[in-house]
Amino acid sequence: MLTFDEYQQRVVAAVRPLAPRSVPVADLADTLTGAADGHPLLGLVTAEPLVSRVALPGFTNSAMDGYAVRAADVHGATPDAPVSLPVAGDIAAGDTRTLRLEPGSCRRIMTGAPLPDGADAVVQVELTDGGLERVEIREAVEAGRAIRRRGEDLRPGDQVLPAGTTLLPRHIPALLSAGAPQIAVIPRPRVAILSTGDELVDPGTEAGHGQVVDCNGPMLAALAAECGFDVVAVRRAGDTGEQVREALTELAATADLIVTSGGVSAGAFEPLKLAFEGDADFEFVKVAMQPGKPQGFGNIAGATVFALPGNPVSSLVSFLVFVAPAGRVLAGRDPAIRTVEAAVAEKWTSPPGRQQFARVVFDEDGRVVRPIGGQGSHVLGGLAGSQALAVVPAATTDVAVGETLRIIPLEGLA
Amino acid sequence: MLTFDEYQQRVVAAVRPLAPRSVPVADLADTLTGAADGHPLLGLVTAEPLVSRVALPGFTNSAMDGYAVRAADVHGATPDAPVSLPVAGDIAAGDTRTLRLEPGSCRRIMTGAPLPDGADAVVQVELTDGGLERVEIREAVEAGRAIRRRGEDLRPGDQVLPAGTTLLPRHIPALLSAGAPQIAVIPRPRVAILSTGDELVDPGTEAGHGQVVDCNGPMLAALAAECGFDVVAVRRAGDTGEQVREALTELAATADLIVTSGGVSAGAFEPLKLAFEGDADFEFVKVAMQPGKPQGFGNIAGATVFALPGNPVSSLVSFLVFVAPAGRVLAGRDPAIRTVEAAVAEKWTSPPGRQQFARVVFDEDGRVVRPIGGQGSHVLGGLAGSQALAVVPAATTDVAVGETLRIIPLEGLA
Repeated sequence: MLTFDEYQQRVVAAVRPLAPRSVPVADLADTLTGAADGHPLLGLVTAEPLVSRVALPGFTNSAMDGYAVRAADVHGATPDAPVSLPVAGDIAAGDTRTLRLEPGSCRRIMTGAPLPDGADAVVQVELTDGGLERVEIREAVEAGRAIRRRGEDLRPGDQVLPAGTTLLPRHIPALLSAGAPQIAVIPRPRVAILSTGDELVDPGTEAGHGQVVDCNGPMLAALAAECGFDVVAVRRAGDTGEQVREALTELAATADLIVTSGGVSAGAFEPLKLAFEGDADFEFVKVAMQPGKPQGFGNIAGATVFALPGNPVSSLVSFLVFVAPAGRVLAGRDPAIRTVEAAVAEKWTSPPGRQQFARVVFDEDGRVVRPIGGQGSHVLGGLAGSQALAVVPAATTDVAVGETLRIIPLEGLA
Repeated sequence: MLTFDEYQQRVVAAVRPLAPRSVPVADLADTLTGAADGHPLLGLVTAEPLVSRVALPGFTNSAMDGYAVRAADVHGATPDAPVSLPVAGDIAAGDTRTLRLEPGSCRRIMTGAPLPDGADAVVQVELTDGGLERVEIREAVEAGRAIRRRGEDLRPGDQVLPAGTTLLPRHIPALLSAGAPQIAVIPRPRVAILSTGDELVDPGTEAGHGQVVDCNGPMLAALAAECGFDVVAVRRAGDTGEQVREALTELAATADLIVTSGGVSAGAFEPLKLAFEGDADFEFVKVAMQPGKPQGFGNIAGATVFALPGNPVSSLVSFLVFVAPAGRVLAGRDPAIRTVEAAVAEKWTSPPGRQQFARVVFDEDGRVVRPIGGQGSHVLGGLAGSQALAVVPAATTDVAVGETLRIIPLEGLA
């Protein structure tokens, strides 16, 4: 039996980031051309630094609505002794003319509009009478006032984003403004899901005697989508080793990662074991954890395969602690999923020698957790009602009130 | 000037949850038929309780791989005095036959397979010699051992999920297994984005003198997608009031919420103001916050409109603190976005009388924050490099080391 840490480290160490791909920057920011399972940019990792090709701002412009002036022309202006200047016209944002300000004159100018040559300051409208033909300026301004200089935010050659940036909405302005047409990113891992078991019937159909609705496939697909992975297939295979091998070989053609559920425990008809036991590229192990003891991991036709136990709760836990970290590595990210800490508000027990992932709910604004439902792994109601998994170390058998545990929240996986 | 809280409460109070819609449960769980901007289920809110129509498990079944027996037949069995029984055959998971166990016999049975009538316990395979024709049973078991009884997880009529559940992967097994073909959910808010400003050019094109790339539209669309909203359009309008009114009227036909950027401040050519100032369904206000002071809010043709300031940093902050909470209300969720607390590790200043949203980075594993970049609202590099917004109360002008602030992380908005 492997410890939890041994097995987790083994599967994470077995995968490498996917090969980067150069994509048009504008496509990344285009929500409406997004893939079926998410925004095209959110959560992608850059594989090279983004270096600005342009100056930002691209032209010296006004930081305020007001009047573009030569500071020398308004020297000494006060509310009691305003300076009056002729207004040579307006400059709106979007004005593409290259204008020149004659000495002794001014122009009305809007926020973001290009400063005319010769001007060296903007007097904000609140310090004037707002005149259109002539304007009274009631305060002297120093040169440089209310001006954003060309290149003061970024200069050509400046690094905008380092390699390894996980892209988020806040990166979009810099990404789009830096003038680089393309950027290399690590693509999303393509994930295929395969449920096994002759007892399974399709969601939406009625389960007869001996049958159950396949809920693992859709659940694992939703988890993968929430992690930002690209779900390319959700299938079921029959219960023979041949059927499973055939399905996996086919899925490997379009997937980087295949997640199966079921068929890995001690029964006589375990299709994953029938398909791969003894295969040099595959291993079936027992991991000292609860739930999720039987695990399989291997490769087929270039795809990484996680063979998870078939119980829904075991599948969910195994996905979070093994598949999600490995998928994040494929995506170029840190393997660690988000965890928090909380104190135990109600005692429970944990099996000796196994790291327990106990279903819990938060209380007191997230500072404490309580166990929920039975810990029997078939309890779907308890799974639905839980908010997080509390990680109980293998050495602990009695989880005591007040003890601080690491907690894996069951949302916000991206 | 309104306080931040006054304005935030006003916009949140002005919206109501969207009308629920009944959708097939199987569609909700189907990742591959997802909308362009996300998984069809993640983040949707149920508008009615989900009540089970079936018993779960649907049939009494084996919790282990082993042998189905009558407990009375293995009474007294020990390793030294095993009981030998004939094996009447196998029952695999997915076996739909209704079988009967004759007294004095047993059947090999797999996890999840239906227990034959007459059997009342399962002896796990590890307590036997694993025989196929006859089996030696080395431990007596009590009736009920290793059995999951029909209905022990859920009975028909049991509530599976309460109304108001925000759906996540962990709800899928219960949702799919409860036998309800449909469930009423509140649809995702349909969001349209409109950037205004004659200075804007399309992402991917070169900005000439006086021009800037429209980065607000894509950024706001990405924020909306990350919040789980359905982005239906990302457009630009020219700088006249007529152009803006026309564009908004058109967008209102397919959107619940329209977010505009630009055209709300004190300049002479503010298209949102030109379009709506004086309109009874619209208000333009100054909010005591930095950035984001000028804000507009109203209705056009049944759609709620947020007119945000055009500066990218102001737009982002305004989206998070006004649009995201209102959108969450439309979606049937609690308006509050996720915040955390952290201590200040490096001092900075905040303008008097305005609630500041300062760009910060986390340090020391998220326990402290430091300010990043200039707080000038045009600094795209600083926006890209920031990880969160620290909320500085209006009364604070010197943010001191050690002070605890509420922090809005710039990721995990869903």
